[in-house]
Amino acid sequence: MTTATDRATVGVLGGTGPQGRGLGVRLALAGHHVTLGSRDPDRALAAADELAADHDVPDGMLTGASNGHAADADVVIVAVPFDGVVSTVEPLRATLAGRIVVSCVNRLTFDGNGPRPESVDAGSAAELIARLAPGARVVGAFHHVAAGRLRRTAQQLDLDVVIVGDDHDACAATAALADALPGARGIVAGPLRLARPVEELTAVILAINQRQSVAAGIRLTGLDG
Amino acid sequence: MTTATDRATVGVLGGTGPQGRGLGVRLALAGHHVTLGSRDPDRALAAADELAADHDVPDGMLTGASNGHAADADVVIVAVPFDGVVSTVEPLRATLAGRIVVSCVNRLTFDGNGPRPESVDAGSAAELIARLAPGARVVGAFHHVAAGRLRRTAQQLDLDVVIVGDDHDACAATAALADALPGARGIVAGPLRLARPVEELTAVILAINQRQSVAAGIRLTGLDG
Repeated sequence: MTTATDRATVGVLGGTGPQGRGLGVRLALAGHHVTLGSRDPDRALAAADELAADHDVPDGMLTGASNGHAADADVVIVAVPFDGVVSTVEPLRATLAGRIVVSCVNRLTFDGNGPRPESVDAGSAAELIARLAPGARVVGAFHHVAAGRLRRTAQQLDLDVVIVGDDHDACAATAALADALPGARGIVAGPLRLARPVEELTAVILAINQRQSVAAGIRLTGLDG
Repeated sequence: MTTATDRATVGVLGGTGPQGRGLGVRLALAGHHVTLGSRDPDRALAAADELAADHDVPDGMLTGASNGHAADADVVIVAVPFDGVVSTVEPLRATLAGRIVVSCVNRLTFDGNGPRPESVDAGSAAELIARLAPGARVVGAFHHVAAGRLRRTAQQLDLDVVIVGDDHDACAATAALADALPGARGIVAGPLRLARPVEELTAVILAINQRQSVAAGIRLTGLDG
């Protein structure tokens, strides 16, 4: 039996966006101490209080702070838009050194034909973060977990979280976070160089969502042999 | 009630490879007249005869021929390795004009760290095929259907087939092919420009397969609202 004190503390950079809020509240409900980070700490505090009240999060499990304070956690989730990655991560490189840093960032654009992935010079957003914070143990995960599903905390997620990274323990810790969410399962796929297809798949899922007015997730089948 | 005569005829370019053989036998068992194509027609015929015998395919549903003859079908599946795309498709551009051409081609390489996707100048293998055969109605599909699962014809596939393409009817016809395979479901995701993430996801699935000694597939969840 694990207790809350055994569980990784989690900070979310860009924690007031839809993905950050959704992951934050789900992880807090799963027993992790979560700090939503923002450039504006007051905004982060207000978001955390609102989420905690709306979703009956136990006292003290979900709070808000500056991104710099949020980065002082066992696991730091980067949930900023792609255009905010450099300005958010670069100043925190010293804090992030040695930590597990989980990127759920995608670089997507939208036009009349729907979403499309945009190339990233570093290969992927996750690999860009690894360059910006060279000591961090960077993992890519949680890209395909629709904010709309995260928000409906009374419902099971019914999806797998595909995880890529070069640090075995960081991948395992991220899988444990995923497994802690009801109806989710973490699947470690392979090295960080596979982040591009994982990130870009988000465009395919969003295209399906747009076409069918749903919030789709993915599951891997056949993993039991 | 549809009968075999209502169903699309299918040709498979590169039909003697694992993916081509697997798709060919499954589609023949589903009631489609299938021609496996090869540079060497005798090899294609031998492969078709062997598959038909091994999997109890009804007489006349599965045959072999040159790639040129296989291309004379309602739906032409391109199942050659990436390096064979130009030499296979370019000479057939006149035959392919107006036809539904389904690419399940991926450009992947393998090294000590497993599979990885390689960039394609055209954006994706499917978009390269669209350039090589400008009149063809090109669709990307069937990338994630493991040959190992296709071969076990007594078992349900238990996976979704993600389909991308710009021609509505070609996508719908491809979805109908997928739906005809027991345990499979065709999902039209969006335009052909989304072929890259669909193709590259294959590397992620193969990495999981390698890691877990499985033949994984993917399912979309949450499509029912």
